[in-house]
Amino acid sequence: MPLKKPHNGLQNGDGSHEKDSRHFGNGSQQQNMDLNDHEGEQNLPSVLEVSNDSPVVNGIGTSLANGSLNLHSTVKRKLDGEKDYVFDKRLRYSVRQNESNCRFRDIVVRKEDGFTHILLSSQTSDNNALTPEIMKEVRRALCNASADDSKLLLLSAVGSVFCSGLDYSYLIGRLSNDRRKESTRIAEAIRDFVKAFIQFKKPIVVAINGPALGLGASILPLCDIVWASEKAWFQTPYATIRLTPAGCSSYTFPQILGVALANEMLFCGRKLTAQEACSRGLVSQVFWPTTFSQEVMLRVKEMASCSAVVLEESKCLVRSFLKSGLEDVNEKECQMLKQLWSSSKGLDSLFSYLQDKIYEV
Amino acid sequence: MPLKKPHNGLQNGDGSHEKDSRHFGNGSQQQNMDLNDHEGEQNLPSVLEVSNDSPVVNGIGTSLANGSLNLHSTVKRKLDGEKDYVFDKRLRYSVRQNESNCRFRDIVVRKEDGFTHILLSSQTSDNNALTPEIMKEVRRALCNASADDSKLLLLSAVGSVFCSGLDYSYLIGRLSNDRRKESTRIAEAIRDFVKAFIQFKKPIVVAINGPALGLGASILPLCDIVWASEKAWFQTPYATIRLTPAGCSSYTFPQILGVALANEMLFCGRKLTAQEACSRGLVSQVFWPTTFSQEVMLRVKEMASCSAVVLEESKCLVRSFLKSGLEDVNEKECQMLKQLWSSSKGLDSLFSYLQDKIYEV
Amino acid sequence: MPLKKPHNGLQNGDGSHEKDSRHFGNGSQQQNMDLNDHEGEQNLPSVLEVSNDSPVVNGIGTSLANGSLNLHSTVKRKLDGEKDYVFDKRLRYSVRQNESNCRFRDIVVRKEDGFTHILLSSQTSDNNALTPEIMKEVRRALCNASADDSKLLLLSAVGSVFCSGLDYSYLIGRLSNDRRKESTRIAEAIRDFVKAFIQFKKPIVVAINGPALGLGASILPLCDIVWASEKAWFQTPYATIRLTPAGCSSYTFPQILGVALANEMLFCGRKLTAQEACSRGLVSQVFWPTTFSQEVMLRVKEMASCSAVVLEESKCLVRSFLKSGLEDVNEKECQMLKQLWSSSKGLDSLFSYLQDKIYEV
Repeated sequence: MPLKKPHNGLQNGDGSHEKDSRHFGNGSQQQNMDLNDHEGEQNLPSVLEVSNDSPVVNGIGTSLANGSLNLHSTVKRKLDGEKDYVFDKRLRYSVRQNESNCRFRDIVVRKEDGFTHILLSSQTSDNNALTPEIMKEVRRALCNASADDSKLLLLSAVGSVFCSGLDYSYLIGRLSNDRRKESTRIAEAIRDFVKAFIQFKKPIVVAINGPALGLGASILPLCDIVWASEKAWFQTPYATIRLTPAGCSSYTFPQILGVALANEMLFCGRKLTAQEACSRGLVSQVFWPTTFSQEVMLRVKEMASCSAVVLEESKCLVRSFLKSGLEDVNEKECQMLKQLWSSSKGLDSLFSYLQDKIYEV
Repeated sequence: MPLKKPHNGLQNGDGSHEKDSRHFGNGSQQQNMDLNDHEGEQNLPSVLEVSNDSPVVNGIGTSLANGSLNLHSTVKRKLDGEKDYVFDKRLRYSVRQNESNCRFRDIVVRKEDGFTHILLSSQTSDNNALTPEIMKEVRRALCNASADDSKLLLLSAVGSVFCSGLDYSYLIGRLSNDRRKESTRIAEAIRDFVKAFIQFKKPIVVAINGPALGLGASILPLCDIVWASEKAWFQTPYATIRLTPAGCSSYTFPQILGVALANEMLFCGRKLTAQEACSRGLVSQVFWPTTFSQEVMLRVKEMASCSAVVLEESKCLVRSFLKSGLEDVNEKECQMLKQLWSSSKGLDSLFSYLQDKIYEV
Repeated sequence: MPLKKPHNGLQNGDGSHEKDSRHFGNGSQQQNMDLNDHEGEQNLPSVLEVSNDSPVVNGIGTSLANGSLNLHSTVKRKLDGEKDYVFDKRLRYSVRQNESNCRFRDIVVRKEDGFTHILLSSQTSDNNALTPEIMKEVRRALCNASADDSKLLLLSAVGSVFCSGLDYSYLIGRLSNDRRKESTRIAEAIRDFVKAFIQFKKPIVVAINGPALGLGASILPLCDIVWASEKAWFQTPYATIRLTPAGCSSYTFPQILGVALANEMLFCGRKLTAQEACSRGLVSQVFWPTTFSQEVMLRVKEMASCSAVVLEESKCLVRSFLKSGLEDVNEKECQMLKQLWSSSKGLDSLFSYLQDKIYEV
């Protein structure tokens, strides 16, 4: 499936140098990465020069911006965009310099010493929301990382949101057009995305800098180590938005959190703070936002100094009993979503809920 | 099996209007609900009129009475009875007014908008202890709720105790008479009761207002969401009272609490406070006693506004992997209890322990 | 395999009476228990006389010594040895007096009323580290306890360390000599040791007085109740020391702690305090060091007053669903260790890490 590239020009290309240069957003500048978009970048310092004052550069991409999350808030998105423009440009610039072979639109992939770093940095959705195209990019990056010499994978996000889950604007748009075809296509995209995590053989470390919602939270138990910033929070309000669980959360959440809390999350949209998620087992450890990047990088580098065989075999031992079960769950969950989306009743219920929400903002 | 109805008259029928009308007990007035027991009730205000000052009426049935639990304390029971008489009468009156089709003796069933509310309110046992007859009533109510249009089930209790587990006075009485026959009958009643929870397809929300003991605590992981008042506590002292685990707790407790804590509960009778039970995963969330009813009702009503299909399918996804396992565990646990009760040695050990306790009080 | 007995004489036999007589170490005095080593002991008071001021005597063997753990620190070991000499001698003396039939070198076995008490008290390794010979002694003691009339087993340790896991000095020494033969022998010793815990049918209570590392922490979920002193801590830095998980921790740790924390322990060597281990489910309850022994003994004696049938059948119900799974995991884990140790690459990686550590001290 060919990726459609937005041809919008750079907005707010000038005058975007803000005082607090540590703030940066979720990559809302739409850039055409495969075309020549270097104009305006040549005069930026190289990545190494700014490595001391920007969290982006030490690799995780946290943000100190204390913005509350408004899904689908185009206004906020543009504001963030202005403020954070310079850093995203720097980041993208550096990536293109280092990694001529890996070109993605909505994620950034950095090959580091001993590990691969994937950053969600969506250009085609808000708040790192997932579309089938973005999920396909992540799968491609996972596939590359599984084959190369990296010993482990670090997954994080650029901006103040880790991942806001499935892109519901996208979902409504597509399902409205052709519910039968699109329900299958989107459900299969989710299935393959989740399967890629289940089957990935090297340890996956996730660094959660901000909100992780829906599918963005559900996949965490499929990863191996989950470090969160104090500013992260977690929510999977599937029933609330008239959906059934995805990302194997119907199995992994009860397993980790106990049925009582898992169901409160899945049925009532209970929100967990980083500390709650940590004390209940979803998160390995919580760090202060200001030092989050450094703490994670330190630990990832130490892990990457271990023997590749030991890392992979340890993960194999830990996961082998779960793997086939998880694949079944994933199939069932996606089957159920497809059924919901292809039934007019399920779709109406979803639409009426989501459209209310979108017009609310 | 026909339910035997006690024909005791109303005790303390007069002079029971206490100052602090918010206190009410566990329904210790024995009433014959199928007969005409309306005398003395006609002059009570209707339920709607008292809805602002009585927790019963907003639906959960918590109590502010700060009484410590004394199992089998007949003295305390009578005192509670006097104090709480007016509210139980009001509750029962309202139920009979609204629900002419559902008549139970030891539980109250209210059909609400979108959900069914079952309240334990035992007339034939103390502290909402369970007898085969009461368990059968709950099964009947579950069966009704599974077939009607309610989207979910709310389970709570009238009085200050949620459920004190199996009624040991009943147990001793019956097993003394005919150990072989009664051990089978009681073990099968437990098995069918537990099975009804395992097989119930709609989400079950439990609101725990006070102590939940033995079987009353063991069934909680078979429910989907467990909200507890700060005053609730949890104990399953099976080994202490010379019994083996029931209600699938031998499987669900280690799964949720970890083997170390689960075994401390099952073997040593370790008591968990509401907060402990919440932090260890047995409980979804803890609320202040004063606002407990409102908080639960608010959430249950919101859940009941979800699509019935989504609720049922979500539960199906969460539970499908556990169901057959749980049914096996339930069979094994009840088989073991039957063996214990039908062996003279197991019975002697149980008797000597329980009789000590009963005479102690 | 015949146990080789060290023929070292008693070091520091005199002048070892220290002021703070409550301190004692991890049994670093090498004694030949099967030979006549009673000289120098006759003038010691009998065990019963010192029962009020020594934790050893009330049975758990905690220590108030606030020493940080230095693995393989021969200097510290000798110092501890001097200080703690008198108590270990008393303990061993009492054991020999009471239990003429059970003679072990590196563990102490006490037959108490209703239960068997095994104390790790290694004479041939530091910090209660495990060698194949010591693991064999524990297996023999487990085997005896399974056959006699004890209703449960209490496992604790003499000294300030519960168990520092596999003895890496031993491991390096043996693997350097004959990697092929020794890798098989040691991996099989671990397998059989772990299997003995999986298959033990009576409840096992563990009392953790100090650090529990590697295999010493991994076996805890195979036990039934885990009580820890505030001074205990837990660490399984398998990947850090270039090993794959053992003791079924690849299965039990994710099950109990959640994948996120389990993997942080297995991959990054995350250390858990007693309180953390308790709040995450590895430990049942934490007690103050000063009263730890009494608290444990009180509870163990109460458990031992239960019916033996109820205890064993309850454990059977709790464990039956795990048993065969755990045996598979154990096989796989030990197979993997054997492969690592018999490959020159895996061994080199282990050696370079461990030798660095040993020379560091």
